[in-house]
Formats: sequence, structure tokens, C-alpha cells
Amino acid sequence: MADTKHYLHQYETEAINNDGVNGVAYVPNGLAVAVSHPLKDAPGTNPEQLLGLSLSTCMSATLEAIEKENGLPHLAEVHVHVSMVKGTDGLEFLVTACVHIPHISHALAVDFVQQAERRCPVSKLLSKSDNYTVEVVAGFDQ
Amino acid sequence: MADTKHYLHQYETEAINNDGVNGVAYVPNGLAVAVSHPLKDAPGTNPEQLLGLSLSTCMSATLEAIEKENGLPHLAEVHVHVSMVKGTDGLEFLVTACVHIPHISHALAVDFVQQAERRCPVSKLLSKSDNYTVEVVAGFDQ
Repeated sequence: MADTKHYLHQYETEAINNDGVNGVAYVPNGLAVAVSHPLKDAPGTNPEQLLGLSLSTCMSATLEAIEKENGLPHLAEVHVHVSMVKGTDGLEFLVTACVHIPHISHALAVDFVQQAERRCPVSKLLSKSDNYTVEVVAGFDQ
Repeated sequence: MADTKHYLHQYETEAINNDGVNGVAYVPNGLAVAVSHPLKDAPGTNPEQLLGLSLSTCMSATLEAIEKENGLPHLAEVHVHVSMVKGTDGLEFLVTACVHIPHISHALAVDFVQQAERRCPVSKLLSKSDNYTVEVVAGFDQ
């Protein structure tokens, strides 16, 4: 497979963690975040939240592109839920991207979200996992 | 498949992006990050970096657990490279986790990293993607 793919390289970045889940993760010359265990009451973010921030941003940007192609302003709102669960195969994350697009029909929202699911690079990376779901929702609480 | 799985629920979080790649992504009552397009010279992080921070932290924490099980201190260093490329199927991310574990044999490092690849929840989510690779390296530059 690999030798049949021809890519135009556009951007590269790096993230480093030497501390595990208690310490700091950082991008050289970029963002540094304190990380902590999700089940401990210590300040800091964690892999679940960082994955949710990545996917929600990527899906929102992809939906913005689709909205623009359809002559619409960016209205889509993306909330990503990440759960950590323990099953027979150890720890797993369950990831659900919930999308609300106000002021358009449900059918059009479903069409846009299905396009975004196939185009968003983070969504593509997750798409073969049984633990990844994308939903169109009528709205969010509050 | 789904109805045969029984999970012990341990933790849940949420991340929100309403802005696309120019604005803010946030966790309610938690981390908020400015985001910007990776090809534009604006301050902010992006989905590539956030994914790298998530994976590097999760792999590092998993390796720490494996090191502890083997009576070792946490020595593993995890650098995640994320590239954005454009191919015939549109934009894609290529993700490579490079792991260096000093002071142990290469064979033992490979064993630990193979275990971590199968146990780390973020690695599990990416494991069916052709764009995800894990490497054991002899060291990092600088």
C-alpha cells in the first residue's frame, strides 16, 4: 500500500512527553500543558481532554470549510465526549463527536456531518475504531 | 459487537470547539487553548499538536506502568511526530510515536513498546489506521 501513495507534505510538528501522566507535555517552542491523572484531583489536563480538543477543532474546521462551500457562515458547534472505560481488554477510550448546526435542516446537517466525518484528518485516523461515533444532535444542554 | 461488551465506566470529559481552526477550543471548567491554522503564522496550537500531546502523554503513562511492573523507574521518552499531507483522498495526518528508553536493552525496549502500543487507549484508537506507526529509537537529536 504505502509505495502507491503520493503525498504533498504540508506541515509537520512534534509533541513530547517524558513524564507520563504527572508532569508536563509540550511542543518544542510551542504549547506546554500540565498533565495529571484523570482520576486524581490534581490540576492539569489529560490524554482524554487533549484528544477531545484535537478532534473537536479538526471537525469544526472541516465543517466550516463545508459550510463555506455551501455559501453558509460557520454555525457548526462540535462537542466531543471522551470516556475512559475498563473492559476485558484493559483501558479504552470511547469517543463521540456530537455536532449541532443551527438554522439548517436536519437532513442537510446530516449530509454535512457525514462529509466532515470522511474529510477531517483526525476523524479519518479514528474511523476504523469501533469506539468512535459521530452524532448529529438537535442542540446542547444550556 | 457492542452488546457483548461490558465496561466499567471510570471517567468522562468533554471538549468543545465552535470556532474552527481560528479561535478557542476548551474543556468546560478546564483547559482552554487558542487555535490557529497550522500553515498561518498566528499564535495558537492546532489539531496536529493536540493529538501529539494526547498520544505522547498516554504512551508515556502506559510505558511508566510497564516499567513499574518490571521494577524499573520511569525512563521512557516519547516524541510524537504528526505531519499533515495532501493525497488523492484529501488531507491526512501521518502519526509516528518514537520511543527511547535509556539504560535498558534494545530487545527489552521493543518488548515494552509493543506492550504499550496494545495497552495505551489512544494507541488502540489509532491502531487500525495505516497512518499510525510506533518506533523504538536509539535516542533523540540534542
